[in-house]
Amino acid sequence: METLEAIHKRASLKLHLSPQKIEDDKINKIIESARVAPSARNMQPWRFIIAKDRKLIENLVNNAFSEVNRVAKNASIIIAVCANPKDDIIMNGKEYYMFDLGLAVENMILAATDMGLATHIMAGIDEDELKKMLSIPKEVRCPVIVAVAHTAEESYDEAALTKLTERTRKNINEIVYIDKWKNIK
Amino acid sequence: METLEAIHKRASLKLHLSPQKIEDDKINKIIESARVAPSARNMQPWRFIIAKDRKLIENLVNNAFSEVNRVAKNASIIIAVCANPKDDIIMNGKEYYMFDLGLAVENMILAATDMGLATHIMAGIDEDELKKMLSIPKEVRCPVIVAVAHTAEESYDEAALTKLTERTRKNINEIVYIDKWKNIK
Repeated sequence: METLEAIHKRASLKLHLSPQKIEDDKINKIIESARVAPSARNMQPWRFIIAKDRKLIENLVNNAFSEVNRVAKNASIIIAVCANPKDDIIMNGKEYYMFDLGLAVENMILAATDMGLATHIMAGIDEDELKKMLSIPKEVRCPVIVAVAHTAEESYDEAALTKLTERTRKNINEIVYIDKWKNIK
Repeated sequence: METLEAIHKRASLKLHLSPQKIEDDKINKIIESARVAPSARNMQPWRFIIAKDRKLIENLVNNAFSEVNRVAKNASIIIAVCANPKDDIIMNGKEYYMFDLGLAVENMILAATDMGLATHIMAGIDEDELKKMLSIPKEVRCPVIVAVAHTAEESYDEAALTKLTERTRKNINEIVYIDKWKNIK
């Protein structure tokens, strides 16, 4: 799929997902895409825990996911996105690991979209509980998970089209200024 | 260009750049790609200031860029990536705007790569000085800039290939665990 098509086709659907197994080859492509992302001073602070086991996925979702995110039970895999803040640069007292995680996660979900898979980034999780369940050390953060699923073919395409049609994004002139803040041209 | 090709071809080159003008159509595609990125609860905290004016670019680079980033003088445009932390969610006392900026910026640099342009994300900037020069309000953060340039065709391809060949990334088993932290399989 063309890059711009993948960028514009990506949607966060909660329904019409199917938990059938994703081939290891595809999972590797998703992870490889995250791996080659840029990061501040190439620190690569990211660590990914891939939950493949169905019982584990069910337990994670039941115990560490907010009500609205329980649909992640239909995910084929759940990727816990982690970083130790100390593994990244701190510039003028400001941390960059969240920014770097964003760069890597976007690559990840575009690669999945490119392969016809559905993705959903979820921040609505009980981070402490998730860390406990995955034996993640206290000092490591796990701010989001990425649910990756097959699409339930019969219903997904239509739902995705509706979602994209209804997509609400700010207008360009609300987010872009030329040469100066709020100097809209 | 195929999505995975763009993801793997993207490189942060500092040399072999050419500041010739980038067509507005291409700049729009770059910004549109950022615009459709996902964000926590679709808050879209991002704001982008595009510096196109050559004198402005020169002044910004001279006054607000670290020594090693002065090569950005050869950028065709410089995009200041901004967000007001209050425009994004805070979950359990933790901010998400940096993560969302990462998602949008990755889309942006992949779109540019897809169109044969070179990009470089730079965190080594004097944020306060940059904000002053671009009239960015005090409460708004501007943690990175993205330099976008044409490639100096004769030398770029070879340099990019060398850069990609020398690319240093952690091994997969250093960043990926299955079902549990550090339970490497």
